[in-house]
Amino acid sequence: MGSVYLMEARRGPGRRAGETRTREAILDAARRRFGEQGYDGATIRGIAADAGVNPALVHHFYGTKERLFAAAMRLPVVPSEIITSVLGAERDRLGPGFLPRIGEILTGTMLRAWDVADIRTAFLGLLRSAATSDQGVVMLREFVTSTIVASLTQVAGLGDDAEGRYRATLVASQVVGLGFARYVLGLEPLASATAEELTKAIGPTMQRYLTGDIGPESPANPANPESPESPARP
Amino acid sequence: MGSVYLMEARRGPGRRAGETRTREAILDAARRRFGEQGYDGATIRGIAADAGVNPALVHHFYGTKERLFAAAMRLPVVPSEIITSVLGAERDRLGPGFLPRIGEILTGTMLRAWDVADIRTAFLGLLRSAATSDQGVVMLREFVTSTIVASLTQVAGLGDDAEGRYRATLVASQVVGLGFARYVLGLEPLASATAEELTKAIGPTMQRYLTGDIGPESPANPANPESPESPARP
Repeated sequence: MGSVYLMEARRGPGRRAGETRTREAILDAARRRFGEQGYDGATIRGIAADAGVNPALVHHFYGTKERLFAAAMRLPVVPSEIITSVLGAERDRLGPGFLPRIGEILTGTMLRAWDVADIRTAFLGLLRSAATSDQGVVMLREFVTSTIVASLTQVAGLGDDAEGRYRATLVASQVVGLGFARYVLGLEPLASATAEELTKAIGPTMQRYLTGDIGPESPANPANPESPESPARP
Repeated sequence: MGSVYLMEARRGPGRRAGETRTREAILDAARRRFGEQGYDGATIRGIAADAGVNPALVHHFYGTKERLFAAAMRLPVVPSEIITSVLGAERDRLGPGFLPRIGEILTGTMLRAWDVADIRTAFLGLLRSAATSDQGVVMLREFVTSTIVASLTQVAGLGDDAEGRYRATLVASQVVGLGFARYVLGLEPLASATAEELTKAIGPTMQRYLTGDIGPESPANPANPESPESPARP
């Protein structure tokens, strides 16, 4: 799949030199602002000001903030668009059969995306930047929360509340760890397992995190304040 | 807990200056050899030669290669010793009740170890070094495989075969991802969930990876070559 979601390649030869310079100025400004202010803090208006262009031009070139971020970070795909389109298509196709299989579908989608070298490289680049710089951490945390967690809660029909976000961040923990163990550390035999094998092993984990029992005392269900274990303080 | 397993603090004031210099020379040599040759490739004999001392002295000071590695990497604990002693104690205490609860016990042990700042810092230091250097990758991969995966398969009674290692590396993927999401990225509400909440949510994942159904086509059970889906090639 992957290639369907790859962002449009730059039209180098056919593009006027002035437009190319303007785009580069916007992407430079975006990288700086995202790095300094994080994903949520950076605005298209501020990035446009730094690049000396009208905000409307930034919207014209890149559309949404997420697409601008993806272009600035050289991500070949826009993560929430993959989640929404692939999982949305499966939801439409399977109807009520979708939710009981969402863990398996999500795991398979992710592993097939990582099979595309450009996507894998970009994902690992974000992980490395978060592992090594505080700027990278803020950027990646807010990006994951605002785009991936948000689109996942939406497509899985989770509430946009503490429980929905807890479930989505549990999923994120297994996703990040799988990528790290498989592609950074290369732990065997995990690293050379096929996507099908891993979908069988890890799909049920995703399924439980998204729709199953994750414990009565999740952050979404704070312990009963009147329970005997936590008496009101005098 | 944690503190019980902290390595013996250096006896700075009471130690002769010559011994301190010798220990530093050994640790310097160890860091260099582990970095260049990986955990498996580096030998106590080679490290001793670089430090200009007798291998017996290295054994006298540090005991095993794992303890030397832990000292050189400034790990405050020896991971396989935590796994073996804590889980081993629970196994002795619970008898046949141990294996059905191993996922919960392992998750709780890990989260309590990470509550100790020095342990958390050392764990994240290893992750960062793997995220940023090829030397770090080789060192961490071999260390995880030779010590953590090995002691986990042993204490969980997994076979030392492909299936046992696959199960242990699935566990490793969730452990690494939980640490990364919780402590590096600080994804909320996962980051501020309590150890008890996370044990409820993630314990069953560990349990299934260690003892449950992880799919008929795991690397340990290669697809039947005579199955209809994969006919012999002409």
